[in-house]
Formats: sequence, C-alpha cells, structure tokens
Amino acid sequence: MSFEIISETQCFGGTQGYYRHAAETTKCDMRFSVFTPPQALDGPVPVVWYLSGLTCTEDNATVKAGFQRVAAELGLMIVCPDTSPRGDDVPDDEAYDFGKGAGFYVNATEAPWNTHFHMYDYVTRELPALIKEEFNADMNRQGITGHSMGGHGALTIFLKNRETFRSVSAFAPIVSPMNCPWGEKALTGYIGADRAAWADYDACALLESGGATEVNILIDQGLADNFLEGQLKPELFEAACEKVGQKVTLRRHAGYDHSYFFISSFIEDHLRHHADALK
Amino acid sequence: MSFEIISETQCFGGTQGYYRHAAETTKCDMRFSVFTPPQALDGPVPVVWYLSGLTCTEDNATVKAGFQRVAAELGLMIVCPDTSPRGDDVPDDEAYDFGKGAGFYVNATEAPWNTHFHMYDYVTRELPALIKEEFNADMNRQGITGHSMGGHGALTIFLKNRETFRSVSAFAPIVSPMNCPWGEKALTGYIGADRAAWADYDACALLESGGATEVNILIDQGLADNFLEGQLKPELFEAACEKVGQKVTLRRHAGYDHSYFFISSFIEDHLRHHADALK
Repeated sequence: MSFEIISETQCFGGTQGYYRHAAETTKCDMRFSVFTPPQALDGPVPVVWYLSGLTCTEDNATVKAGFQRVAAELGLMIVCPDTSPRGDDVPDDEAYDFGKGAGFYVNATEAPWNTHFHMYDYVTRELPALIKEEFNADMNRQGITGHSMGGHGALTIFLKNRETFRSVSAFAPIVSPMNCPWGEKALTGYIGADRAAWADYDACALLESGGATEVNILIDQGLADNFLEGQLKPELFEAACEKVGQKVTLRRHAGYDHSYFFISSFIEDHLRHHADALK
Repeated sequence: MSFEIISETQCFGGTQGYYRHAAETTKCDMRFSVFTPPQALDGPVPVVWYLSGLTCTEDNATVKAGFQRVAAELGLMIVCPDTSPRGDDVPDDEAYDFGKGAGFYVNATEAPWNTHFHMYDYVTRELPALIKEEFNADMNRQGITGHSMGGHGALTIFLKNRETFRSVSAFAPIVSPMNCPWGEKALTGYIGADRAAWADYDACALLESGGATEVNILIDQGLADNFLEGQLKPELFEAACEKVGQKVTLRRHAGYDHSYFFISSFIEDHLRHHADALK
C-alpha cells in the first residue's frame, strides 16, 4: 500500500512517525501518527488505537498525551488517526463541532457529507489494512481508546467489532450522542433526522442491543470537566452497563478537567489496562 | 505582587497553572507557567527553572516535555518563562531567530531592543521575586535547565549566579553563542558589535573566566539534531570544562533530534539530577 513518511523521530528508544496516504474511504489525503516501540524490532507488537476529540488532528495526543514512555516500556504500538477528512475539496462547517475536525467516527449518508465523511470505514477498515501491511503490528492483539468524541469512537467501534478488539478504554467519552447536543447535531447532519439510525453509533444503545462483552471497560472522567453534565453524561453508560451486566471501571477524578493535562495524568493506567489484555 | 491567573488545571495530583503579569524589566505583560507539585501543600518545595528555545513560549515545554509526572513524584516546582517580551509595542524581526520568541536571555543595550529585551533581568530577578512571594517555593533550593537557546540561558545564568542555583542541566544547548550563527546574530543585534561584551553571555567564556563550579553539569544531545554541527557544538563546552576542571556529563544519543520527542525521552533523568542536588 502506498503511503508517505512525513517524519520519523526517535522517542524513548522507539520511533514516533507521522504519515500521509491517499485514502479511498474518505476520498482525500489522510494523515496519521504511529509510535513504534523498540520491541517491534524483534517481532509484531500489539496495537492500541487512540481516537481524538473535537478540533483535534493526529498531532494532539501524539505531542500532549505522553504515551510514548509507557508504550515503549510495554511494547505497544500506538496509532492516532486524524478526526475527519481534510482538504480543500472536503465540505466544512463554521462550527468547531461539525465538519472538519469533527467526523464523529461515522459513515455519513447525508449530502454533502456523504462523499468524504466515512471515518467509521476509514478507522475500522482502511487504516488497519495499511497498518497491518506496512508496520510490524500484531493485528490479533488490538485495543482501542480515545478522548471525548474519540471516546465515543472507541466505545462504539469496540462494541461493533467485538472480534477485533480485546481491550477498550476511554477518557471523558461522549457515551450517548443520541442524548447530548454535540451528538444530536452531528448525527442529524451526517446520518439524517431518523433517530432509529442513530442507535448504530451510540455506545449505550449498542450495549443494550448487543449485550455485555467479556472485557472490563476502563473509563476515566474528570469532575471539573466543563462538558461533564451537558455532553458526556457517564451515568448513562453506567446505567446501560448495569442493565446488561457489562463490567466497567468508571473512575471519577475530583479537580480534573477535559484537557490533555487530565489525559496525561492517567494515560499510563490505560496503557497498562490494554497491555494486560493484549499480552 | 500583582499577577493574574490565566488557568489552573489539575495534573498528576498537582496544579499546572498559566499566569500573566505586568513586568517592569521588559515593560510589557509577560506570561509564564508554573507546575506546583502536591508536596507544596505541606511546605515550600524546590524550584527548577525551564528555559525554552527559539520560537517557543511558556507553553511548549508545559504541554510537550511531560515533566509533570516526575515533578509530582519528586516534589519539584517547575517554572517556565516566555522567551521574549511580547505585545504590539515590542519591536520584532521577520526572522524566527531574532526579536520576539528569541530573547536569548540577555539585557539588550542596542536600540530599538534595549527598551524591552531585558530577559536576563526578567528571568534572574523579577520573575523569581514573584515566584518567591506568590508560590510555595523554597528559593534556597533552585535548579535551572533549558533547551537550545534556553540551554544557553540555563548554562550562562547558572555560571553568573553560582550562589543562587544548586543544580544545572541542558538539552541540546547553544554552548557558545560567540561561535555560532544564531548567537552572533543575536549578540550583535542586542549587545552590539563589540565582541568583548559578548563573553558575559557565553557559557564557554564564563566557565573559562569564572573557573569550575562544584556541581556536575548534565547535558543531553541528540546526534540526529540538525543544529548539532552548525549551532550547538557541544565539543566546545567539553573542551572548556576540561580546561578548568569542570565536571560535566555530556551524553550523546544516536538517532535523537532537536524536538520535544527528544526532550520528553530524557526529562526524567534531568529532574532526578536536579532533585538529587536540591533535596
């Protein structure tokens, strides 16, 4: 598969790379980052996907989350995709929470978004195929995590692809886009007004329809997070887990907000959570 | 002293803050960041100053270096000043290596720079006075580090203030601005053409004139650093140390470049180096 190296930099004995390729699913050039741990020199290593939140690119977590130290220790490859299609041909919206930087990890069906905004297919199918072919990744050992909109992505993609992922976690995730303003706006715009179709991209609905999984889901949530009550609503996911008997560790942290200072404080716990399941 | 809180965010059990104040030395509003470790709740804690490189503000190291985890463990306060005066009244230059973002930690004597560009006084006198008064800092236990231009700042400020600092380290420092294009341009512009005056801001010259100190200086340098041969020249500092009997640990790292992926890989070693001297 064809892809271009933008940069590769030594970090904690591994390689932090930025890459670009022409994506078929999103019909545009897409960027992503991969941290390859030193253990990949000796053989395929497990992969943890990190999906970012609104306004982010592949760069935010790569420079701010501080995952490289622990990933190098545990021998985990970390892949960070971008959060939407990009480029002059790609439609956009003035708002920060729709259009570019806000792909919501769905396959859009509504015009004009349905040409490029196929982030679900991109993240679950096209980019994994490239990672499998071009990096020393063991695709039988994959975990997924993310932040905010990316936490929604991680939870829904995990619940829809239970054979693919052995572990999942999330930082301050949108747990039910059907029940918050960010989600209602995005799903209406990308998928249309029929709320029945939205359930396919709602972690709470997917859990209730699909039933419990065998893994323990780790979620961290700051209690000083400005979006906690209006958008994130972890109590909805807690209730859905209880209803179907899904094991979840939801940790609420006094004083922490929605920023990468929160994520960096707990990323080590998440990577150890994934490594335990992937080793 | 008057200062404004821009933001304060929980991080690794401590507080990552951004602040602003009207500075007398630079005659403009200055921003800085302070990480206050959890140990500061129990009493004054040692302070490590982190001086950034060309084009940076107080933000780069704060979000990219990953110092908070180790600082929280070791009980170190980390202060990151900006790298130059700022604001519409402050003169600037089109180049990235002169003017705003490139204060070089000197007191300018040449017009038009001599009105605002007093970063040496700001970093050694005005900001420490504010930190002493407003934060729970033990000013009898101070260390200093920095990157590139900020490594030059750390080494020269340490050598000129031997009673103030108990420890010093640097990442990829400019060790002799008298002998590299970045330094020659900055010193000519800020201090004037008389090279005799430059020696007061040159780590190699200061070491040779002032003699050895009792501390061990830790320096990390990547060997894939694009600026290594043309600007940084660590061998000049090595030679100056040998000449005066100064103890230095200069570590050369194959594959590492000039970026924060390099700094984040070794920041833990630096903070432990400082903590050993400050405890």
